[in-house]
Amino acid sequence: MKNLKIGLCGTGNVGYAFAKTIINSKALIEKNYGLSVSISLIGARKGKVQGLEDIHTVTDIYEVPKSNDVDVVVELIGGVEEAYELAKASLKNKKHFVTANKALVATHSKELFKLANENNVHFGFEASVAGGIPIIRIIRDGLISNKINSFAGILNGTSNFIFSKMADENLSFEAALLLAQEEGFAEPDPTFDISGQDAAQKTSILATLSFCKHAVIKNIFFEGIDNISPLDINFGKQLELILKPLSVGIMSTEGVTLGSFPAFVKKNSLLAPIENESNAVLINAENVGSTMYAGPGAGAKPTANSVLSDIMDVGDGKIFNYEKFVENPLFSSFENFSCDHYLRITVSDETGVVAKISTLLAENNLSIDNLIQKELDKSDGAIPLVIVINNSDEKIIQKTISDIQMLSEVKNPISHIRILEI
Amino acid sequence: MKNLKIGLCGTGNVGYAFAKTIINSKALIEKNYGLSVSISLIGARKGKVQGLEDIHTVTDIYEVPKSNDVDVVVELIGGVEEAYELAKASLKNKKHFVTANKALVATHSKELFKLANENNVHFGFEASVAGGIPIIRIIRDGLISNKINSFAGILNGTSNFIFSKMADENLSFEAALLLAQEEGFAEPDPTFDISGQDAAQKTSILATLSFCKHAVIKNIFFEGIDNISPLDINFGKQLELILKPLSVGIMSTEGVTLGSFPAFVKKNSLLAPIENESNAVLINAENVGSTMYAGPGAGAKPTANSVLSDIMDVGDGKIFNYEKFVENPLFSSFENFSCDHYLRITVSDETGVVAKISTLLAENNLSIDNLIQKELDKSDGAIPLVIVINNSDEKIIQKTISDIQMLSEVKNPISHIRILEI
Repeated sequence: MKNLKIGLCGTGNVGYAFAKTIINSKALIEKNYGLSVSISLIGARKGKVQGLEDIHTVTDIYEVPKSNDVDVVVELIGGVEEAYELAKASLKNKKHFVTANKALVATHSKELFKLANENNVHFGFEASVAGGIPIIRIIRDGLISNKINSFAGILNGTSNFIFSKMADENLSFEAALLLAQEEGFAEPDPTFDISGQDAAQKTSILATLSFCKHAVIKNIFFEGIDNISPLDINFGKQLELILKPLSVGIMSTEGVTLGSFPAFVKKNSLLAPIENESNAVLINAENVGSTMYAGPGAGAKPTANSVLSDIMDVGDGKIFNYEKFVENPLFSSFENFSCDHYLRITVSDETGVVAKISTLLAENNLSIDNLIQKELDKSDGAIPLVIVINNSDEKIIQKTISDIQMLSEVKNPISHIRILEI
Repeated sequence: MKNLKIGLCGTGNVGYAFAKTIINSKALIEKNYGLSVSISLIGARKGKVQGLEDIHTVTDIYEVPKSNDVDVVVELIGGVEEAYELAKASLKNKKHFVTANKALVATHSKELFKLANENNVHFGFEASVAGGIPIIRIIRDGLISNKINSFAGILNGTSNFIFSKMADENLSFEAALLLAQEEGFAEPDPTFDISGQDAAQKTSILATLSFCKHAVIKNIFFEGIDNISPLDINFGKQLELILKPLSVGIMSTEGVTLGSFPAFVKKNSLLAPIENESNAVLINAENVGSTMYAGPGAGAKPTANSVLSDIMDVGDGKIFNYEKFVENPLFSSFENFSCDHYLRITVSDETGVVAKISTLLAENNLSIDNLIQKELDKSDGAIPLVIVINNSDEKIIQKTISDIQMLSEVKNPISHIRILEI
């Protein structure tokens, strides 16, 4: 039986779950897949780990890629710089390298793909996007003959959890965030998730694979979720719209449009019932049409399982040449991204204000699809005015929003949420 | 570059789409996957096929597995007996064998897994279940460490299309079936789809892989969809339930429960928005929790793409040992399957009938969750009575239904639809 020795770097939640998965699944894997897998070496700065004392452990993680007793290095330390050094050291030492580190892949995939190819080893990163959904292998191995036209997904479980709680329990953003932290779905410092950066990194990885073009963070337009008010979620409900943290990638003749931002979807969208911390990815491809994949976005055990699926690829002798697969540069712009738009404008209760706004919209060739004016919600002489605008591209809607914002009757910043037909 | 020569048997819709996919994707596959694929031989009883005249064609399909110019035989002729002979001839001649034929796999997988193993060749059948969703490789390669607890899915696109049209356009079963035939989603003879046999075959394949136990048609409880009335769909709407053609597999300590039947799901179920001809599979596994995969269930191009993904496995040198993977016999019984139940009972408009039915329910220890009595729908002195019964197992509900059916006040056969929490 083929034997595969794993050098594990990082023994936090995910690393520990991965080690336990290997130990617990060893017999199953031998029977079902004819492969013997074991962790031969652990790199952990704090030394021996409780529950894994039997495994030889070194405190210098860089010892792991040097060991003759290691076939594949699994990086679960997180962070970019050390992980990057570890990845380079592993690949240069002709060790296969498997990681769950989205920041590492989003930042350095081009160089790492090249290094893996030069050294004829496999670089696996299934766990870096949508931890519990085998989305990388679906794109790579499942949709082979397909030109992928677009993808749209919910890639950040924290944001999805927050929106779900705001909608279902009528919580404020702050209260929903606190709940997410209490239940372990948000970090003590949640900046990375709620700023949209986490989703943007995952979007860049999905885009790179879907369109076979190198995407990096600067290619992605992204917006955070912290400006969303329960008011918007409630107005959305009246319009049969549900708020989701969305990431999209769209291929067109001009290039690729990439973005991560809060957006409304129609209540019959396949993405509408994807709630709480779940993730989902919808892919539209030339030969297959629309397919959707949904499941847990993170969590130690789902992530460990995805890492294991990469290990099995290595066991199968798979050395996927991502450098060859992704060989084109990517051109992207969000300027021409076109969709419907929701605007909530707080206006002073004076006659003529709706006329003024309508005139500005007409001047920009925008048409109103829906208008809600809630006199009942008046406070301090100001009332919310909700306008749904038909299909407009980014350039025009942004100009229009700043025109409206400058009207003296408009109080507070305008809330702007895109509405996507997916 | 590695070279793979395909012998294609069958040049109907799917076979033709597959040949065109190979021809059109050749350059892409060479670039992205470093593999050269070509069709070296076609077996087609009618001889040369228009559009594929350049490829050497034989009218005796059994010549294909004998050819020295063929590495992998692709079977797209359909039907069981000839496909079975072709599969055996191919595997015995040490040709890899790829098929889209669910009936073949459902009927003969055990023997074919064994033959493939003995001859050290790959047996691929990704396209046999949910044509456009790479569900076989997701279970096999993606959910490696997972004990699968259960699956639930919509595996028959024809039935899903019919229910969707009945619900959305208030059509009768017959009218919806006619529409499905007109739009090409149902065969001229639709028996196989609407009797539930098609879904049952796919259920047996999914069960075999999910639970690593050989399932065959006789293990599957199945019901057709032709007894469903628009009345049931409308009462369902009032109860916030949506009708779907469901297939389920549930592992328990007593064995595996397998069934394919029409069932109601709650309107917030992930399966609720899976409409028209789409398929979906929800899998619950120990380490990952719930994941869902949705997409087209059939169609020539999606099926061709799935066949191609198996070809790529062969190109990768993958020879998956299904015989080792699936080595246990399966014990199954539907008797203990437990869920809520919807009953529509047509009763004569006499006092006391609800009391009689309630008494029978109480005698069987069943509790009523919901009751709708529509005096307005009275015709010929009979009124529909809809009862939702809390969690009951099959044995008890079947006994109760026959008890109620025997009451003199009960006209027409009782409509019984299971309600699943998925």
